[in-house]
Amino acid sequence: MNNIKYTDKISNTNDNIMKEACDLASYSVSIGGGPFGAVITDKDLNIVGKGHNMVTINNDPTQHAEIVAIRDACKNLNTYILEDYQLYTSCEPCPMCLSAIYWSRIKVVYYGNNRKDAKNIGFDDDFIYDEITKNIEDRSIKMHICNDIYAKGSFNKWSEKQDKQEY
Amino acid sequence: MNNIKYTDKISNTNDNIMKEACDLASYSVSIGGGPFGAVITDKDLNIVGKGHNMVTINNDPTQHAEIVAIRDACKNLNTYILEDYQLYTSCEPCPMCLSAIYWSRIKVVYYGNNRKDAKNIGFDDDFIYDEITKNIEDRSIKMHICNDIYAKGSFNKWSEKQDKQEY
Repeated sequence: MNNIKYTDKISNTNDNIMKEACDLASYSVSIGGGPFGAVITDKDLNIVGKGHNMVTINNDPTQHAEIVAIRDACKNLNTYILEDYQLYTSCEPCPMCLSAIYWSRIKVVYYGNNRKDAKNIGFDDDFIYDEITKNIEDRSIKMHICNDIYAKGSFNKWSEKQDKQEY
Repeated sequence: MNNIKYTDKISNTNDNIMKEACDLASYSVSIGGGPFGAVITDKDLNIVGKGHNMVTINNDPTQHAEIVAIRDACKNLNTYILEDYQLYTSCEPCPMCLSAIYWSRIKVVYYGNNRKDAKNIGFDDDFIYDEITKNIEDRSIKMHICNDIYAKGSFNKWSEKQDKQEY
């Protein structure tokens, strides 16, 4: 979806923007992707980024609609901070996408289907929501803390850097 | 990091692979990125993907080391499923990256610094871990459920599709 310029204005209502996100979700299904679409707008509802699920299309498990839309908006706006923008997604975000929304600093999210609807058609985000709240030793993924001498070194390098760009 | 072919064998020990992840983290700091690196290997510890934080370098809040490494491995292996691979990361994954690890089906993660170490140098993953476990109405992000007629349509399209690629 990158490099698309959104010169085509659509009528500025929440309902129309949500329809655009859902149209992207339906389009995704038609070309072999998952049924998810997302649109990012400014406060005047001008579209600054959009995307749809491309996990199976592009062999990339991170290409959920919201992630694709955030990357698209950031590329178009030349920033990694979207605090003045809002996201419309055809479905409640999974934990990966919700976390990405926090990192992007988007403050307002509109969504269509919820996670129960998603589960009913085979997308079980609840499993991941449950897992990431567990103690590390109770997760289905085995997580091992390693010798951290090297790891500490990289953090020290960051702490000591005078001209670092914090975010 | 894409398109790098990993013909350079490094000695196959967990410690050396972790050192490689942490070297990537230090390299990232040296070029203006955050202090995070990650490596993905097969069970014989051959490297199949790697990455470092590029949030501020590429203006992309989703380019955490683990996400970049997962995308790199998936591109190199031409798959969106990494269930036979393991991830080494210089720091305990944030919720976005941990969720991406679940979506990729990686089952084993080695990490160096933990989230408290990260918080001590200014990266507060705990905030997001806390937020995503809250009820929707209690989060700092305002989330609104919308008219879902359109949203239902996209899910129905998925349900009715005969030749869909489920994942």
